[in-house]
Amino acid sequence: MITPSSASSPSPGPTAVGIPDTASAVGDDAEALARATWSRLAEPADAHACALVGRLGATAALDWLVHEALDADGAPRPAPRPPLRPRGDAARASSDWATAAGRWAPRLQGLDIRRELEVLERLGGSLLIPTDPWWPTGLNDLERPPHCLWVRGDPALLAARSSAESGGSETDLAAPRMREDLVPAGPGAGYGLALVGARASTDYGEHVTFDLASGLAAKGVVVISGGAFGIDAAAHRGALRAGATVSVSAGGVDRLYPAGNTDVLEEVIANGALVAEVPPGCQPGRHRFLTRNRLIAAMSEATVVVEAAWRSGALSTAHHALELGRAVGAVPGPVTSMASVGCHRLLRQGAVCVTDADEALELVTPLGATDPDGAKAADPANAVSGLLDGLDGPTAAVLDALPARADAGVESIARAAGLSEREAIAALGVLELAGRVERRGTAWRRARKRS
Amino acid sequence: MITPSSASSPSPGPTAVGIPDTASAVGDDAEALARATWSRLAEPADAHACALVGRLGATAALDWLVHEALDADGAPRPAPRPPLRPRGDAARASSDWATAAGRWAPRLQGLDIRRELEVLERLGGSLLIPTDPWWPTGLNDLERPPHCLWVRGDPALLAARSSAESGGSETDLAAPRMREDLVPAGPGAGYGLALVGARASTDYGEHVTFDLASGLAAKGVVVISGGAFGIDAAAHRGALRAGATVSVSAGGVDRLYPAGNTDVLEEVIANGALVAEVPPGCQPGRHRFLTRNRLIAAMSEATVVVEAAWRSGALSTAHHALELGRAVGAVPGPVTSMASVGCHRLLRQGAVCVTDADEALELVTPLGATDPDGAKAADPANAVSGLLDGLDGPTAAVLDALPARADAGVESIARAAGLSEREAIAALGVLELAGRVERRGTAWRRARKRS
Repeated sequence: MITPSSASSPSPGPTAVGIPDTASAVGDDAEALARATWSRLAEPADAHACALVGRLGATAALDWLVHEALDADGAPRPAPRPPLRPRGDAARASSDWATAAGRWAPRLQGLDIRRELEVLERLGGSLLIPTDPWWPTGLNDLERPPHCLWVRGDPALLAARSSAESGGSETDLAAPRMREDLVPAGPGAGYGLALVGARASTDYGEHVTFDLASGLAAKGVVVISGGAFGIDAAAHRGALRAGATVSVSAGGVDRLYPAGNTDVLEEVIANGALVAEVPPGCQPGRHRFLTRNRLIAAMSEATVVVEAAWRSGALSTAHHALELGRAVGAVPGPVTSMASVGCHRLLRQGAVCVTDADEALELVTPLGATDPDGAKAADPANAVSGLLDGLDGPTAAVLDALPARADAGVESIARAAGLSEREAIAALGVLELAGRVERRGTAWRRARKRS
Repeated sequence: MITPSSASSPSPGPTAVGIPDTASAVGDDAEALARATWSRLAEPADAHACALVGRLGATAALDWLVHEALDADGAPRPAPRPPLRPRGDAARASSDWATAAGRWAPRLQGLDIRRELEVLERLGGSLLIPTDPWWPTGLNDLERPPHCLWVRGDPALLAARSSAESGGSETDLAAPRMREDLVPAGPGAGYGLALVGARASTDYGEHVTFDLASGLAAKGVVVISGGAFGIDAAAHRGALRAGATVSVSAGGVDRLYPAGNTDVLEEVIANGALVAEVPPGCQPGRHRFLTRNRLIAAMSEATVVVEAAWRSGALSTAHHALELGRAVGAVPGPVTSMASVGCHRLLRQGAVCVTDADEALELVTPLGATDPDGAKAADPANAVSGLLDGLDGPTAAVLDALPARADAGVESIARAAGLSEREAIAALGVLELAGRVERRGTAWRRARKRS
């Protein structure tokens, strides 16, 4: 991590502001500078840039670009050596890479990423890369992850809960503060949940969002949203009332966009975190909103849509979450309200119906209390109630019938639950959609949190 | 069928009003009289009465009661010969049957079912038994079916659509009018759909119900409900606006209950049908409402709940429908409305989110247009749009990927749909809940309507 305020930061990396010439920096800092540079060179989710940085590392990727793909004048060579082993037609691959280099070359001219880092420093921000302990590891599930994150506010709020658990922070006094240390203690402490929805929201939607967000934040959940008008703003406001929130920006974190949300975004920076994958100075262009949505979904353990029209950016966030295997919830509303049409569409697609904070919490903590590796698996009563909250009848019976740590076939599940196989399968489908069970071949088991 | 108005009735059975002495009547009429008698002797869903009548026939069941279970004075014998082969302890079975006979004996004293039939005749009604062509065959799926139905209004509206199809009514000029002949032509013609909900409904719920019911009735669906205040009444009113409706009463059809709904119930009798499993004179007691709900669910090919509190009789109807393998839908509402809590509960249990008449219609006609045996499988364009209406993304892709008339494994479905197996299974779960696909062992196929 590169941060201008090392005094308040127990990060392992030294404070540094470097230059994209990889020869002048070493180790993590060189990689951080190179990643920052890539975040400026390539648009978010650029397939070639993501593959290149992901496979070679940012420094070597930059080296390839400067020394292989471009000539001495910085112009793209027509047939560069492909940096990755080409699949199929090597000539075709070479020309694809030439095209990609052609996209990046114009931004390389005169680029010194230290300027953007200085802007970040003046704003009190910090830069996160995947090797940092606060990197939201959920982003690693993306096919095209961001190269780095530009952060204002407290970067520790970005750390996924699972990182903290595997890091053993409870015994290591030198370990950095993690997300759980910054949020109210509660059943959701340290989990991230996206609460998103329409800009053209109704009073009903904003009211429900505010209540959901404050209820979740009070239980320790970090509420993640997009800083837009309407539902997003209500989510941030509700979360700030009771706990922590993270806003993912489509443009640089120096731009508080939209201007009408300046007050809430300033409060997010003061008491939460504002984050972007593009450097300061970048405009929140339309295409960046769509790619931004994948970050919201990936940083969150579940996504809940409160209000959405038939076509809505919030639905794209929900679909990213589904693609990532994350739980998706939708808040119902009057069928006469156009602002709820998208939510009802999601419900018809299998999203979980969410009507209050407890039901939303279930999406992220279905097995939290029973995780055999977790220190919090304390109270068996809580475990059972947590497991079965909000489930009913056959679904609860099926979940109950699943052995705690082994696989089971449909036939034995149905027998144990006292249901027909058909009913058991239907219930398993519901439980799978809710992220509570996993299928392995023809067997089923209770879902485990990713480590 | 026993009907007082043979002039308007092309029923095969002669008009008759008989007596419970089985020796004095022959064939169907004797059985009809005996069934009518049983509907007076035993409470709805009496397990012993249903088993007895179902296995022996009503006439023989009555014969056993009069000659074996009771002595010459009409008092129960302490150890009657069990009428059905006892499982396990024969002595225990005998004493159970003595208890049952003890329940029925008091009502047999002085009973002449002809009196109730005369009341029915004065009201212009008719009696249906399972062998009648208008018998709603969906009732046969019940573990404890009614012995008969006491009907005011047009009994042809009770005939399930599938009966008409198997009866070949199009060529047989002497065949009775069936349900399809009485409703508007349309994609739902002749299907029965239960539209039920809270008595303590909101303006929102009543408004949505009225629109759903009139939309469904206009497409030929027979809207079935319970005649109660609130959602039920709105369902009947909406259906009467555009087509046909059936009201299932918890008490005798001579009582228009609740009195405040007299106007709409009279309109139901005039333009639809009012039906009960108990004879005229029976009070609509509390327990009869719960047993009545199983009739609504069984007579309908799907049940949609519009508004329901956390505990609501409408939920019992929905659970009966689920038990019967019928599709269940729920209409969402504001999460701030207590009247929608039960609907949201159903949605969390896997009910299909229904927001308009087309989505409700899908529950009963998922494959109507593509039924290979049906004469209405006319327009392939309609077929495809009917199949995929309201589905989206992976769910539509999976339904599309299923071969038309063969089984397919998850792997091949996933491959054809371009999805991961996990996504395909989740979509299959949703489709199964919606009654659109069926699982056979490890293979899946498109659901076929029951014949």
